[in-house]
Amino acid sequence: MRDGRGWSEEPDTRARIGLAAVAEPGDPVVAALALRYGWQQLWERLIADDGAVPEPPTGVSVDAVTSRMHRWRRRARGVSVSAILDHTEAVGARLVVPGEGDWPTQLDDLEGCRPYLLWLRSARDLRYSALRSVAVVGSRAASDYGRHVASELAYGLGERGWSILSGGAFGIDGAAHHAALVSAAAAPVASRSGGTIAVLPCGIDRSYPRAHERLFGRIAAAGTLLTELPPGAAPSRHGFLVRNRLIAALTPGVVVVEAGRRSGALSTVQHALRLNRLVMAVPGPVTSALSVGCHNLLREGQAVCVTDAAQVAEEVGPVLGQACPEAGSRVVSEEELGPLARRVLSGVPRRDRAVGPATIAMAAGCDLATVLRQLGLLAAAGYVERAAGGWRRSRDTAG
Amino acid sequence: MRDGRGWSEEPDTRARIGLAAVAEPGDPVVAALALRYGWQQLWERLIADDGAVPEPPTGVSVDAVTSRMHRWRRRARGVSVSAILDHTEAVGARLVVPGEGDWPTQLDDLEGCRPYLLWLRSARDLRYSALRSVAVVGSRAASDYGRHVASELAYGLGERGWSILSGGAFGIDGAAHHAALVSAAAAPVASRSGGTIAVLPCGIDRSYPRAHERLFGRIAAAGTLLTELPPGAAPSRHGFLVRNRLIAALTPGVVVVEAGRRSGALSTVQHALRLNRLVMAVPGPVTSALSVGCHNLLREGQAVCVTDAAQVAEEVGPVLGQACPEAGSRVVSEEELGPLARRVLSGVPRRDRAVGPATIAMAAGCDLATVLRQLGLLAAAGYVERAAGGWRRSRDTAG
Repeated sequence: MRDGRGWSEEPDTRARIGLAAVAEPGDPVVAALALRYGWQQLWERLIADDGAVPEPPTGVSVDAVTSRMHRWRRRARGVSVSAILDHTEAVGARLVVPGEGDWPTQLDDLEGCRPYLLWLRSARDLRYSALRSVAVVGSRAASDYGRHVASELAYGLGERGWSILSGGAFGIDGAAHHAALVSAAAAPVASRSGGTIAVLPCGIDRSYPRAHERLFGRIAAAGTLLTELPPGAAPSRHGFLVRNRLIAALTPGVVVVEAGRRSGALSTVQHALRLNRLVMAVPGPVTSALSVGCHNLLREGQAVCVTDAAQVAEEVGPVLGQACPEAGSRVVSEEELGPLARRVLSGVPRRDRAVGPATIAMAAGCDLATVLRQLGLLAAAGYVERAAGGWRRSRDTAG
Repeated sequence: MRDGRGWSEEPDTRARIGLAAVAEPGDPVVAALALRYGWQQLWERLIADDGAVPEPPTGVSVDAVTSRMHRWRRRARGVSVSAILDHTEAVGARLVVPGEGDWPTQLDDLEGCRPYLLWLRSARDLRYSALRSVAVVGSRAASDYGRHVASELAYGLGERGWSILSGGAFGIDGAAHHAALVSAAAAPVASRSGGTIAVLPCGIDRSYPRAHERLFGRIAAAGTLLTELPPGAAPSRHGFLVRNRLIAALTPGVVVVEAGRRSGALSTVQHALRLNRLVMAVPGPVTSALSVGCHNLLREGQAVCVTDAAQVAEEVGPVLGQACPEAGSRVVSEEELGPLARRVLSGVPRRDRAVGPATIAMAAGCDLATVLRQLGLLAAAGYVERAAGGWRRSRDTAG
């Protein structure tokens, strides 16, 4: 159920927002309590501020629940869910909630550590972009070599219709996003690349690092900016570490481009290995301390050696299997598309001409934001493609 | 049985020399014929020059035997085994023959392609040096990076008591030998490194390439120069390829430092894989064409990723197992030492003083060449060590 803001404001969603504001991200005690009492009741108990502590769920200690309830209550006194919702709308973000249509179900592999909900700035369908993505990760303090390789990989993967997924840091992250944006802009009309996805360790309205503010704006416009933290949340060391589990869970494959012996990128790798995601590493000169992490992964057999985008695509392609085939073929049948997607598709002309999103919105009887979002989904699913002048149906659906 | 020259001149040895001079190295038809008729009879039939062709051994065609006998007879007319023996002595080389004490039995893994015999210029015991060796191979047209890494590996392996085994080419081979010689010269008194071993694709008296003449002289003096071709034999393309099987067979492990997509070093790797030798590859920049061969080996899981000498030693050490333990422990019991080795050992003083090889020769009643050769064996086996002023028993045997 979506209301006027374009997302659900059911009591459960409001409770998830409240917990995202007071609890650590992905705390399994939150998940266990919500499973036992329901999100709404858990939140209501918290804001009752009566000092009562719910009976702990199986496998959770009384102490763990007591200390958390105490901490959450103290924080909850300053939290207004309505204000967070206003803030979310004001910064042009939207919510994605588990169980709803656009929730990336691959995050469910995190089980008890699953995010409570996500904040997005995006014109794309997150689920489909992330399904056909490769995470490109590595050191903040990357070398020229590392940035060069990250750019080449991201550009080449974009050309092959893959989205790039990364953090928002300097070094490898930034190089990968920049190249993915160039690749998306230069893509042929039939490209269905999901662009680039940045997972932030802070609120969707914060630019961390500051110098990437413009980059984040471009990613929000052409790709996806996402976080599990509410607007206004500042980055923290813990935030970076828990953020890395989202990168690993969202993608079928992680490539480490450059990583020192103790690089934070290796925490993403550890999450990816636990989640059975494919891990790849780019070799570098053995004389470079920034490649030691990559070489250790190769040496220990935890990562496959990759040297270019073609090899990455060759490795990740089979992992997706039928779940996300090569660009140009269908991800889901037309019957499986949601009603909104079908409605928007009905407004997209056949192959002989292309029209802009506003025209499609009029033809389909939807608002422009809905059209933009559904076009991303339809493109990722192989039904529509960009062309000079706007969008048209792709060859497969033209008949 | 050794005669005045210091090696066996039994009829079998003379026949092997003759066949080495007329047949391709490691021809399995030679092995099959020698197995059926004996070396002496095979050689006598050849030089009889009566046109008769022996009945082919099982699994060999009449055509294969006929064409070879014809070719070998034509060549044998210009061959004098006595002249080859004189030439061998004149260039300071000696012979090592299968079945004799100093034959490196690891070459028997080549089965029908085993060399007929070897020519050596060395003061070391080949068998023990090669048992505790690592082959360092790679491109002739190596980069500065590749030569640097080859030097670092060879030096570090020398420090750890490992011999280096390689060809004699420019690039990786040369860099590895040079560093191994420096490492051997700088080694602490207790070092038991076998120095460096160069396997030539030509006669032991030829310097190929010419510019490595001085290097080969230093290797002959401080390590081992060896070939399966008789003195005077010129290098040939085929010679390089069959030579590579000797490198693979002599060593427990091969490290590829730099190799282009079609580098000759990869033929050594293929031999090593067939012989179940450990294959290691050094990564490099993915932007370098000279590392493509290494990265392909890593990517296909045919090689273990190694980045320094410590990692190479860590990989190869366990492969040797009890056959060749860490420097400092015994390879064989004193009872298993040959009579000559025991005789030389009897001339080596206890730990409180060290003496030169000439003193040991007098004390043991042997000639100097025998002492030098047996000291290499005894050092590799953990019984003696170099010290200021010469040699002494190592700590383990001092009691």
